[in-house]
Amino acid sequence: MNELNIKGQKAKKSSFTLAQLSSNDKNKGLKAVADAILLNEKDIIEANKIDVSNAEKNGVKGSLVDRLTLDSNRIKSMAEGIMKIIQLDDPIGEVMWMKKRPNGLEIGKKIVPLGVIGIIYEARPNVTVDAFALCFKTGNAVILRGGKEAINSNLKIIEIIKNALISVNMPSDAVSLIEDTSRESATKMMKLNEYLDVLIPRGGAGLIQAVVNNSTVPVIETGVGNCHLYVDEYADLEMAVNILVNAKTQRPGVCNACESIVVHTDIAAKFLPTACKKLREHNVAIVGDPIAKSIVQDIEPASEEDYGKEYLDYKISIKVVNNIDEAIEHINKYNTKHSESIITENYSNARRFLNEIDAAAVYVNASTRFTDGFEFGFGAEIGISTQKLHARGPMGLKELTTSKYVIYGNGQIRE
Amino acid sequence: MNELNIKGQKAKKSSFTLAQLSSNDKNKGLKAVADAILLNEKDIIEANKIDVSNAEKNGVKGSLVDRLTLDSNRIKSMAEGIMKIIQLDDPIGEVMWMKKRPNGLEIGKKIVPLGVIGIIYEARPNVTVDAFALCFKTGNAVILRGGKEAINSNLKIIEIIKNALISVNMPSDAVSLIEDTSRESATKMMKLNEYLDVLIPRGGAGLIQAVVNNSTVPVIETGVGNCHLYVDEYADLEMAVNILVNAKTQRPGVCNACESIVVHTDIAAKFLPTACKKLREHNVAIVGDPIAKSIVQDIEPASEEDYGKEYLDYKISIKVVNNIDEAIEHINKYNTKHSESIITENYSNARRFLNEIDAAAVYVNASTRFTDGFEFGFGAEIGISTQKLHARGPMGLKELTTSKYVIYGNGQIRE
Repeated sequence: MNELNIKGQKAKKSSFTLAQLSSNDKNKGLKAVADAILLNEKDIIEANKIDVSNAEKNGVKGSLVDRLTLDSNRIKSMAEGIMKIIQLDDPIGEVMWMKKRPNGLEIGKKIVPLGVIGIIYEARPNVTVDAFALCFKTGNAVILRGGKEAINSNLKIIEIIKNALISVNMPSDAVSLIEDTSRESATKMMKLNEYLDVLIPRGGAGLIQAVVNNSTVPVIETGVGNCHLYVDEYADLEMAVNILVNAKTQRPGVCNACESIVVHTDIAAKFLPTACKKLREHNVAIVGDPIAKSIVQDIEPASEEDYGKEYLDYKISIKVVNNIDEAIEHINKYNTKHSESIITENYSNARRFLNEIDAAAVYVNASTRFTDGFEFGFGAEIGISTQKLHARGPMGLKELTTSKYVIYGNGQIRE
Repeated sequence: MNELNIKGQKAKKSSFTLAQLSSNDKNKGLKAVADAILLNEKDIIEANKIDVSNAEKNGVKGSLVDRLTLDSNRIKSMAEGIMKIIQLDDPIGEVMWMKKRPNGLEIGKKIVPLGVIGIIYEARPNVTVDAFALCFKTGNAVILRGGKEAINSNLKIIEIIKNALISVNMPSDAVSLIEDTSRESATKMMKLNEYLDVLIPRGGAGLIQAVVNNSTVPVIETGVGNCHLYVDEYADLEMAVNILVNAKTQRPGVCNACESIVVHTDIAAKFLPTACKKLREHNVAIVGDPIAKSIVQDIEPASEEDYGKEYLDYKISIKVVNNIDEAIEHINKYNTKHSESIITENYSNARRFLNEIDAAAVYVNASTRFTDGFEFGFGAEIGISTQKLHARGPMGLKELTTSKYVIYGNGQIRE
């Protein structure tokens, strides 16, 4: 039996125990883990140094090495993250509704854990702690398959979590790490239907696409965000510039950053010069269609490919449209169903945008950067779903649950 | 461009229109379709006769020919089914909650259609009408891929639906039928991620498994039900016999019928003789473990395979257990996560069964036969989900929807 099957079997078995734990017990387990992470800071940093030095040796690029690196502050915020999850309400056990049917049966819809959650992710070792804590709080077992770059950090973190759980009599099989970081182990995990109830990929577009294309386990697709800002002819232009600069530059490397401006032709000549000047102050490279170029001459031409691109960088594209219909059509064609915003003071255009744009989050007069579990008030998230099944948008604790019907009878049979 | 891509593209385009229709408009479309089906009864029966005669020529077995056959009554009930769906509340547009965040953003979670739903099904032409009506009511476009046995009936029904929609200015691309009934067309449909938001297989275990294993489109797994009745040591035995006979024999060919009895050893000698006698009066074949056989001697031995089997027939297996732990373990091992029932007067055992059995519907003192959209009060169903993602149990209109976050701001940017 291989590593995946052994760990799958243990996780499945453990999930039945986890599903029955009280919130108090689960919080006790989480607290023990948070304490242990702080207490073992040195060991984590030591293990992490091996990963960082290997990454540097292998010529991994700077931004990735930065994501991989753990220091005292980052370890503290891992522990703090757990403490925040302890504070959140436990969704498990809530009966969302119960009704009495004409035959006397009382039927209720109850929130229960999903069971075993698989997570495939890349270089960030903080995901190991986050994912465990969110799954444990919701009574799910989790099987983690992190990237090879972080394997030493991950092994140490998992060892600490397991020991902490054992110290307070919680099932240590609640979490496991696949030590085989080959491509094959990821592929096998995608077929582990016997043990996994859901698989969540966290990482770049390549990883997510590979999981969607190859997994027979149900997948929740997360992350890729080609987000637009549509500046309507009735926009407050000062607000539009403000929001644009925020949505593009406040943190360009994340999925809810703005990647493209769509502008109504009637205000393009007024809006674009100021907007482009401000973007340039933040060193944003700009590409645009011929009309945009005729207004702001020193921008580069935008290709078809540009409009479909998530730059995750200081770069943005511009598309000028004749009306809101064209704006909606353009956005629905190129977006990745993540977050889209209209800037307008017009009631009907705001309403049409909210109704007709197909995306997880649709905004009027606000930055797309708000699509986030904390900003939405969920307290924490396991990722942002860009698919429509099960969960859409930021996935908090509730999205890591399913339901079961509980039915109370007194001898009812079907006529 | 092949048939699937052409129809996929049209359905996708149509889905944007459908999502914006009012309930009144959608009900008008449904009413026109119901009327047209009744009006064109003769044409449907004529087309159906070709299918039935082909099936008989090809030696298709009697029960399948029966499912395939349409007569005046069955066509009437198709139209009645639509009329019932018209009566149901339209879930689309409901804002489940809206809250104001500290920064003044108002964030709401709104119910919207899934988009384009694909359905792969087998011989029953009534599914064509049902699936269309449920999808149309929820503002979804639907692409149907029925079995080759029903192709003539399906083509005629689709023609009637499309013409009826056109007659009341509704988009006829709301529904389409894949005319290529080869295995290849089904396989291609499973990869139609560009156009399909979800794929629902309806049919036997083989079809469902093929879709789960090969689809890159998100799937909702439906149907297979290896349902158990656990007769606890504290059962009311008269109730237990009553419920058993109902759950097994009221309609043995459906997924919520009982396939296995689990009995506490302390009441086995009292319960099994009566139970088996009653089952035999209904011509139910019985297999059991050695203890069951020692009590009711003329039953056949049950194999390991029997316990994992959905007979869909007048046959049942018996397993005797020493306690409720063994009962729960046995059921969680062999069940298909569909419907399970305990017969008991004991509070703690009832509670443990409800909590610890992993299934879509868990009953105390009632027949498993109630797991059904109508019986649960949903009014209609597209199938019974046995997976945990998105929908679990009977899938009504609500399960054919997703949500989107609508966010009202006045210039908010992220700090």
